[in-house]
Amino acid sequence: MASVIEPRVLKGFRDFLPADQGLRERLIEGLKVVFRAHGYLPIDTPVLEYTEVLLGKGGGETDKQVYRFVDNGGRDVAMRFDLTVPFARYMAGHLAELYLPFRRYHIDKVFRGENTQRGRYREFMQCDFDIVGTTSVSSDFEILLLIALSVENLGVREYHIHLSHRGVFNRFLQRLGIGDSSEAILRAVDKLGKIGREKTKEILLDSVTDSQAEEILGYVGSKGEYLETLAAMERYVGGSVEETQRLRKLYELAEAVGIAERLVLDPSITRGLDYYTGVVFETFLDGLPQIGSICSGGRYDNLASLYTKEVIPGVGASVGLDRLVAALEELGLASKEERPTEVLVLNLDDSLEGHYHKIAQTCRAAGLSAEVFPEKKKLGQQFAYAEKKGVPLGIICGESEHSQGVVNLRFLESRESVDGVTLQEAISRGREKLAK
Amino acid sequence: MASVIEPRVLKGFRDFLPADQGLRERLIEGLKVVFRAHGYLPIDTPVLEYTEVLLGKGGGETDKQVYRFVDNGGRDVAMRFDLTVPFARYMAGHLAELYLPFRRYHIDKVFRGENTQRGRYREFMQCDFDIVGTTSVSSDFEILLLIALSVENLGVREYHIHLSHRGVFNRFLQRLGIGDSSEAILRAVDKLGKIGREKTKEILLDSVTDSQAEEILGYVGSKGEYLETLAAMERYVGGSVEETQRLRKLYELAEAVGIAERLVLDPSITRGLDYYTGVVFETFLDGLPQIGSICSGGRYDNLASLYTKEVIPGVGASVGLDRLVAALEELGLASKEERPTEVLVLNLDDSLEGHYHKIAQTCRAAGLSAEVFPEKKKLGQQFAYAEKKGVPLGIICGESEHSQGVVNLRFLESRESVDGVTLQEAISRGREKLAK
Repeated sequence: MASVIEPRVLKGFRDFLPADQGLRERLIEGLKVVFRAHGYLPIDTPVLEYTEVLLGKGGGETDKQVYRFVDNGGRDVAMRFDLTVPFARYMAGHLAELYLPFRRYHIDKVFRGENTQRGRYREFMQCDFDIVGTTSVSSDFEILLLIALSVENLGVREYHIHLSHRGVFNRFLQRLGIGDSSEAILRAVDKLGKIGREKTKEILLDSVTDSQAEEILGYVGSKGEYLETLAAMERYVGGSVEETQRLRKLYELAEAVGIAERLVLDPSITRGLDYYTGVVFETFLDGLPQIGSICSGGRYDNLASLYTKEVIPGVGASVGLDRLVAALEELGLASKEERPTEVLVLNLDDSLEGHYHKIAQTCRAAGLSAEVFPEKKKLGQQFAYAEKKGVPLGIICGESEHSQGVVNLRFLESRESVDGVTLQEAISRGREKLAK
Repeated sequence: MASVIEPRVLKGFRDFLPADQGLRERLIEGLKVVFRAHGYLPIDTPVLEYTEVLLGKGGGETDKQVYRFVDNGGRDVAMRFDLTVPFARYMAGHLAELYLPFRRYHIDKVFRGENTQRGRYREFMQCDFDIVGTTSVSSDFEILLLIALSVENLGVREYHIHLSHRGVFNRFLQRLGIGDSSEAILRAVDKLGKIGREKTKEILLDSVTDSQAEEILGYVGSKGEYLETLAAMERYVGGSVEETQRLRKLYELAEAVGIAERLVLDPSITRGLDYYTGVVFETFLDGLPQIGSICSGGRYDNLASLYTKEVIPGVGASVGLDRLVAALEELGLASKEERPTEVLVLNLDDSLEGHYHKIAQTCRAAGLSAEVFPEKKKLGQQFAYAEKKGVPLGIICGESEHSQGVVNLRFLESRESVDGVTLQEAISRGREKLAK
């Protein structure tokens, strides 16, 4: 006999067992409910695209992380590494079929050949939502509101959205005369939470003087109530400016709708990515800062400049599903004790299988998920199966019950039985039990 | 200014606009409802796997269709081309964590570098469901029942499931003394519907004599009521045998549960794929045979023999989502006239934006999806947006309405208005209108 192939998966890639996949599906469904209630519509784009389209004409420093190859038709292709670049390409390609402002969500897998240390995966789900075609503060607010409602819809009560504004930071750097180094400085500051004040300062000293570094660390360290921090930021930039007025209006909208206490104005939030130009934000669960932001995003001036001369501004965010799962597990909110099936119809007699399937159909019509054990086996084996799967109710019907028009209901965990009742009675007793 | 990159997608790959993606999401959700009600659980596996795992040690004739490359770590990898091979690998790898019988569904994208003529795509969704770890006829029946309920759950009333049994066909060929040619013959017969009797016979003549070819075409042409066809099949194999008894039992189960009239015993159904060994089936919508089978499958003796010495028999089916969409569109059941958003709160005054967001929240709490136009623009532009998106209700509130605590409700299609009502009144009038 030929030897078998080891059923291994690639490093950084994962199989999902039903309990885990079920949890992920429920989380995604929960997000979609919120998105749809706010007029966000689903789109999809290919997993595989022309490399030029995903990376631009030259490619870039992300290259090494990209799964890129030549296909059988000789095309240079790559697997998408995020949902933002495909969205930009999509907007440029479909502008005539769409309308602005356009609200979309997109939930699917992306691929990055990253170092898999520190719990990073090479295949992971992204859940992105954006509103494009508007520069309004109302749309910035709407994304924050969606974050709040998405998180709350998952049962999380203790969280805060930390936000800041790239433009205020840039003004501050210009005022210090170091606006030209802003990219390097933004990247350094973005690491502050991970590497600490001292190491951040070391990196900053590559670009700025010691006193400038201290000023920067002072600015990003501003802490307090939202309006206090806003006042501090205004001092750093020399007074009220357009961007700080925007942050004030954002707070007023949040107050009007009742989510102001969720917002933390936090100048240390910069987001490493180049394309953000306005408000930027990250979402942390209280008591679980080590998990990192579970939903991040920001405003960009021009989404699709690589593909069109149309200027498409927008604002959006991305939920990190893996972090969210980790967080919910930590908080005990990631209940996997869903009942995969509520009723198992046991199989005592091959000749009654048609009857068993009818019993299962009746259960389903009454709103209970149900399955028939597919062959006659020892009852002990069937009970063991039910226990492994986590099925709470069993319906037992042998020849004598069948001839009397009754069934026996068994509560599989307690092993208690209600014998000789009609199926309808069994269903209502079963439902009562499950409702408890 | 640098020239832009053309926002093109690869041949055979697709973007989905919201109306199309929304339809696909609703179809998938409809399938999941049926699967879950029957105890089928979701799993997931990676898009990318070791080539050896997907293709076996040598690779095979499907090679040219497989997206295969060497990753940055030097691994020979490939994108999955179906969900069956990954499921086999999954069962072999996770048997200790699972239990048998195991029911799973798996809905995700697969990739094949096929010729894109004839409406074939290189990236498409598969929706697979299987029960493994049992050889029972009850499980064969269960898959047929799931097909019937899935199709009916989509609103389709006119359909039939054509089925046959590989084993009966093999017995018939053995009786003719041409059992050794069964693979070639199965492949030829599988094309009968597409290429017709004459061409099929030509292909058959490569393997068998003229009279044998006529016998084969006679067998596969058997038509009539299920039990009549079954009797004809029995004549071809020389009497009642295990496999024909199984087909009889299958029919009895279908009669007991009320789906017997959906089954067509059709010996021309063979399924080209090698791994089927028992019952095989295809699902056709009446009046739309040209679309082909929208859900096909069968029984296999041993799912995971490439990866484990454990013998895992099972039965399953796969829904072709693209064909299903095409069929539903043809039947007028693929309603894209969903309301993407039910209420648009128009933006007449920047200073009222907090109030607008509260109005939208109130609508959502009352079960209506709602959005705020994100900035103050001319009302004509806002109405044009609502029309393009297909929003049926508008809520208008300027400074004077706000100060009086009222809103104006506008039915955007008829352009009728109900002015000066409370928000609660507007919501209930709007809901009445939508319910019509």
